[in-house]
Amino acid sequence: MINFEYSQPTNIIFGKGTHKQIGMKVAEYAKNILIVYGSERIKKDGLLGEIEQSLKDAGVEYTLLGGVKPNPRLSLVYKGIDICREKNIELVLAVGGGSPIDSAKAIAVGAKYSGDVWDLYLEKDSFEQALPVATILTIAAAGSEASTGSVITNDETGYKRAYNSECVIPVFSILNPELTCSVPKYQTVCGAADIMMHDIERYFTNVQDVDITDRLCEAVLLSVMENAPKAIEAPGDYELRANIMWAGTIAHNNLLSTGRIGDWSSHGMGHEIGAMFDVAHGATLSIMCPAWMKYVYKHDIARFKKFAVRVMGANEEGYTDEEIALQGIENLKKFFASLGLPVSLGEVGVGAESIEKMAEKCTLLGNIGNFVSLDKNDIEKIYNLAL
Amino acid sequence: MINFEYSQPTNIIFGKGTHKQIGMKVAEYAKNILIVYGSERIKKDGLLGEIEQSLKDAGVEYTLLGGVKPNPRLSLVYKGIDICREKNIELVLAVGGGSPIDSAKAIAVGAKYSGDVWDLYLEKDSFEQALPVATILTIAAAGSEASTGSVITNDETGYKRAYNSECVIPVFSILNPELTCSVPKYQTVCGAADIMMHDIERYFTNVQDVDITDRLCEAVLLSVMENAPKAIEAPGDYELRANIMWAGTIAHNNLLSTGRIGDWSSHGMGHEIGAMFDVAHGATLSIMCPAWMKYVYKHDIARFKKFAVRVMGANEEGYTDEEIALQGIENLKKFFASLGLPVSLGEVGVGAESIEKMAEKCTLLGNIGNFVSLDKNDIEKIYNLAL
Repeated sequence: MINFEYSQPTNIIFGKGTHKQIGMKVAEYAKNILIVYGSERIKKDGLLGEIEQSLKDAGVEYTLLGGVKPNPRLSLVYKGIDICREKNIELVLAVGGGSPIDSAKAIAVGAKYSGDVWDLYLEKDSFEQALPVATILTIAAAGSEASTGSVITNDETGYKRAYNSECVIPVFSILNPELTCSVPKYQTVCGAADIMMHDIERYFTNVQDVDITDRLCEAVLLSVMENAPKAIEAPGDYELRANIMWAGTIAHNNLLSTGRIGDWSSHGMGHEIGAMFDVAHGATLSIMCPAWMKYVYKHDIARFKKFAVRVMGANEEGYTDEEIALQGIENLKKFFASLGLPVSLGEVGVGAESIEKMAEKCTLLGNIGNFVSLDKNDIEKIYNLAL
Repeated sequence: MINFEYSQPTNIIFGKGTHKQIGMKVAEYAKNILIVYGSERIKKDGLLGEIEQSLKDAGVEYTLLGGVKPNPRLSLVYKGIDICREKNIELVLAVGGGSPIDSAKAIAVGAKYSGDVWDLYLEKDSFEQALPVATILTIAAAGSEASTGSVITNDETGYKRAYNSECVIPVFSILNPELTCSVPKYQTVCGAADIMMHDIERYFTNVQDVDITDRLCEAVLLSVMENAPKAIEAPGDYELRANIMWAGTIAHNNLLSTGRIGDWSSHGMGHEIGAMFDVAHGATLSIMCPAWMKYVYKHDIARFKKFAVRVMGANEEGYTDEEIALQGIENLKKFFASLGLPVSLGEVGVGAESIEKMAEKCTLLGNIGNFVSLDKNDIEKIYNLAL
């Protein structure tokens, strides 16, 4: 186990009806806020109205900025930064899933930074001050509600990049699983894949003797794999949604990273698909992870065997370690497919002709992956395995 | 799953050599501190010297208060409060395990409270302001390094009571597993039992549909049960100690409580043994838990069966659910015994003649236990089962 620091400062307010506390909670930090959200669905279904009423009751002024799209765009971030400066915004509240939250984080840091916020995503400069961010989560997936990360796509250049800093960890996040009961099936399963991949990216590590976090990773995976298929059958079931939603936060609040170094190359490869083709983030991961696993499993067959046996229900009897490891990979792919997720590039209309360009963009800043370091040539081979 | 709020604000600094950061870390909060510790062992082994040097280098003044005993005493807490007031102490640093930490918490709140701090433990008054508390943990067990709780024994009346408040959560805790490598075998296994019991007390709940936290509880138990027996054989193994130490914090930082209500009656019964007989806390739990389980398992055989199968390696083939549940209880008792822990009152010299008095003190404030509510009569029966 390697040395680490850990805290989870975000105050999580979890449960039925909790979004109605928003005015009171925001008022502890600010009297003038920007609300960042995605689709207009939150207007139609009454959620935005409830939020606005709660803020008014608490004497909080607000400005609305809607229209955040999946794979959230830099252009909208710039718009938000301008509003923050013009209106002296004191806190940025995201309502939605990972895209509004990641946009809110970019806006919060950009509002304090005198240069171009995109330079921070390109790692051309470092800066760690931001307006406070808060969230009302409406989809279980990204884990951004209690994480240091924000991923933004530059809609001019097509590059998708991440910024990580303690300064953008939300001060509080309201998680009401009721709000996720109306999430459509495909978004629900993409969310489940995203949660599982935040976990799997951490699971595959070269750090030895990390039994406690191995076990915790396995626990979260087993729980999501238990609850997600049931939630498809019974989308309005609060308890199933609650278990998935809390798993989504735990998978990405860095507890599962403590003492170990994750891989993150499936995310890197997935981001390039998302940036060029606007495929849902979770779907890019269900495509890339099994291909990545097939390419790298020989690097540590014992770990892949552990994953296969403890999580993926592999059959040990009469099989070699390598065969058991391969069963685990195949079972994961089958599980994703059983949820209705794509497991090949072809299923989302991405052909061989795009591979070189994606591999090039993916390795713009150098090799990716910590479990196995991958160069452009490796990445091309993995995309080919995913065809 | 029930509604909850969760955060883990304590900054955990974990790993080799981390205690040498103490001066720098303390200086972020205070220039004049009280150091609370237990045995003089930390002087002899050089730890206190290293801490003092680091504090001096950072320009932090300190006063020493040693002599904290297991089942920490109120009289020493009073002494600490007096020092804080006389010397305008700004932060209380505990060096040691649960007893110095719980004493530091009591001192930190008592220093701000104008009345008798014991009234807060007796729930006669409520008060939630304290000096900041920090810790350097030297034994994996209590979880007090990132928890809201403090348990103190009134050495005049013999009562042992808990105070819980956000105000005493340490601002930071330094966890260096190297410092635990010299912990003797008996204290190590008592610590393992304490960690497991913080988990088991949360596992047995009447709240339904808590799959994600069930799985996390199981993960922590499996990891402790994997590493503790090995750590007895190889006490100086850093990695084994690191896994146990981190498990100890996770077991009690309230993550495993999220969305559920724990039981805590084994702790309640154990506290009375500790208060009257000065038996190590972990040993009181290894005695009381199996007896408690035998008394209550019929309340929810399905949950005891899940515990037996997923954690305690019970054999399902050809057994009824009740038989499987009972196997789990028996296997837990055998596991504790295999570590060299007592599993009966007789082994620690407590006889039937003390049972009525302990049961009476245990139920001083009313019934205990949430999984099954227990009155004085129930408690007597459980103590009898533990004879």
